[in-house]
Amino acid sequence: MVYSEIYKNALFNDIIPFWEKHSLDNNNGGYFTCLDRNGDVYDTDKFVWLQGRQAWTFSMLYNNVDRKDNWLKTAKLGIDFIRKYGMDKDGNFYFSLTKSGKPLVQPYNIFSDCFAAMAFSQYAKATGDQEIKSLAKQTYFNIINKKENPKGVYEKSTDYRPLKGFALPMILSNLVLELEDVLDSKEVEKTINYSVKEVMEVFYQKDSGIIYEFVTPDGTIEDSFNGRLLNPGHGIEAMWFMIDIGVRSKNEDLIKKATKVILNILEYSWDEQYAGIFYFMDAKGKPMQQLEWDQKLWWVHLETLVALLKAYEHTQNEEVWKWFLKVHRYSWSHFPDPENGEWFGYLNRQGKPLNSLKGGKWKGCFHVPRAMYQCWKSLEQIECIQSSKKVK
Amino acid sequence: MVYSEIYKNALFNDIIPFWEKHSLDNNNGGYFTCLDRNGDVYDTDKFVWLQGRQAWTFSMLYNNVDRKDNWLKTAKLGIDFIRKYGMDKDGNFYFSLTKSGKPLVQPYNIFSDCFAAMAFSQYAKATGDQEIKSLAKQTYFNIINKKENPKGVYEKSTDYRPLKGFALPMILSNLVLELEDVLDSKEVEKTINYSVKEVMEVFYQKDSGIIYEFVTPDGTIEDSFNGRLLNPGHGIEAMWFMIDIGVRSKNEDLIKKATKVILNILEYSWDEQYAGIFYFMDAKGKPMQQLEWDQKLWWVHLETLVALLKAYEHTQNEEVWKWFLKVHRYSWSHFPDPENGEWFGYLNRQGKPLNSLKGGKWKGCFHVPRAMYQCWKSLEQIECIQSSKKVK
Repeated sequence: MVYSEIYKNALFNDIIPFWEKHSLDNNNGGYFTCLDRNGDVYDTDKFVWLQGRQAWTFSMLYNNVDRKDNWLKTAKLGIDFIRKYGMDKDGNFYFSLTKSGKPLVQPYNIFSDCFAAMAFSQYAKATGDQEIKSLAKQTYFNIINKKENPKGVYEKSTDYRPLKGFALPMILSNLVLELEDVLDSKEVEKTINYSVKEVMEVFYQKDSGIIYEFVTPDGTIEDSFNGRLLNPGHGIEAMWFMIDIGVRSKNEDLIKKATKVILNILEYSWDEQYAGIFYFMDAKGKPMQQLEWDQKLWWVHLETLVALLKAYEHTQNEEVWKWFLKVHRYSWSHFPDPENGEWFGYLNRQGKPLNSLKGGKWKGCFHVPRAMYQCWKSLEQIECIQSSKKVK
Repeated sequence: MVYSEIYKNALFNDIIPFWEKHSLDNNNGGYFTCLDRNGDVYDTDKFVWLQGRQAWTFSMLYNNVDRKDNWLKTAKLGIDFIRKYGMDKDGNFYFSLTKSGKPLVQPYNIFSDCFAAMAFSQYAKATGDQEIKSLAKQTYFNIINKKENPKGVYEKSTDYRPLKGFALPMILSNLVLELEDVLDSKEVEKTINYSVKEVMEVFYQKDSGIIYEFVTPDGTIEDSFNGRLLNPGHGIEAMWFMIDIGVRSKNEDLIKKATKVILNILEYSWDEQYAGIFYFMDAKGKPMQQLEWDQKLWWVHLETLVALLKAYEHTQNEEVWKWFLKVHRYSWSHFPDPENGEWFGYLNRQGKPLNSLKGGKWKGCFHVPRAMYQCWKSLEQIECIQSSKKVK
């Protein structure tokens, strides 16, 4: 089987059917994401960012793959739910809700808003619904307004030694492309320029060639717990957002630089003893406070596969292909559940599942299907180039 | 070597010298707690609750063991530091400070206040300092005033499905005995009654015989992530606070009930596969969101040793002694660092250190020395009873 088929098959014959079968809450609307190994619902709380992510996934498949009524219906289940119950009176998105939509945890996490905006935008594209489109726009501008203080009143740090986080500029670099149909082109260019600069000049550190998770407001490194924190999966995921932007603007330098950063981070964060990519690291090798630092997470490996394939598709750098094979082999031999389908989320350092969930508070219907889709599409391009070379 | 000597030797020849040698910040005051395997300082941020805990430890040793000038001087280093820099204008204690005392993280965590109050009280007892004594009292009443909403403005849960936590009533049951010299007897009785009732009637669940970490305000169990959460180490630690209260009030029923709960929790949370006590569990065996759930933590095992020895000292229940031997053997063969002294804090499920720190954000000079002291004293009593039996 050619590589593209592996990803395509998994997407349509394993991943999507798993979520279609187990996650839909046709009584209350929205999705259950707390699914155990068999797919049974073990908790009914609804995490708004995962509601947005699943609605996005089904809208995206409808827009990009096939206009199946069922996919749109599934997307609508989440869109209606977060639209009706997800927001406080100021348009901020709660972190979690009961199954029937009562707010449980306040809007302290701006990523709830980000994935709502992405879901609204894809769904508006699928349906032409203007009201949803303006909701996407409104949510986007609310995010932009909150971006200097994303946690709002729930921020516990004082102003004495402030740090800014990588996650928000990183997500904006993807969000803005997702919202191209919703925003005017000036706003798109502005946010692209902002996020590329933040990611590739501020959080990227020339000396080490890798991405830091927090820097000071003026962009320097701080020797503190958060200042030394590395999140390899975040850094690598951001690089495929950069490659997407590079392709869009035909910026080969950006693509090449992003490719180099992917390789740098992989060299730095690959576990030579047990294989796999570490979850967190300390830039100075100091002891970690994150007790999960050495675990191997599904999304880290999937986003790395996407990043490597996009990099290879656009550079044909053979070192990238070698890394793809290495991460592909590790991922496919450790994460998929051969008995019940879908992927385990959390492996211990040695590569054994440390819990059996298929979804929970942090894992839903998003990284697995998005990566399967992205890898499938990149591999199709790569295989096409390869076979045309052979013909010549 | 008799058991009591093992604990006494470790306390005075390993643990206390380690912290005396490596943690004192004689320039700025206070203590460095971020110490690597060798005892070298790897980060200089100061966590207020760990400052309080270390000042408490040295004051307690001065009061209970030996009036060494050096111990009092070491205690004063922390007392002066948290008194000068630890509080906001309303007397709430920050979570963390820079090495020179500038506030870094706001007072969102009431345990900073709890350990400050305990430190002030022990230090006032050691010195007779009336100002520190009234500071202990003032801090105590501030905790009592905040107890219904300990996180204040940093609370992210809505009021829709409120839960109350076990940690605060648990800590109050110890804090109030620590503050007996500071409070009037009516207040002491009131808080003892409150905390015993909360711990043994509200958070203790008759059906399963164990302690839950969160319950609804009216004391019922909730089937949700937090509602199902078990923290075996917390439950067991609270039981030795109950035994202390039982001894003080000659309440044999309380001592017997606490002993039974210790055994119940141990049966429930002992890892039959790799040995050791799990960090977190789900009461219904559902998948855990806490990625560190299966790790073996130093404080869980030390507090269990204290609880088992206090239970055995006052009940002579042989099942308790068997469990003591089992936990003693596991702990002493896994946690102590034979090369550089002190104990590792965090082991993976298999019992190997998952980082090499001796101290950090959450581990300081507290659980190890307090448990060594408590176990030494209980074992002396137990050995005394045993040898008097032999004589007869």
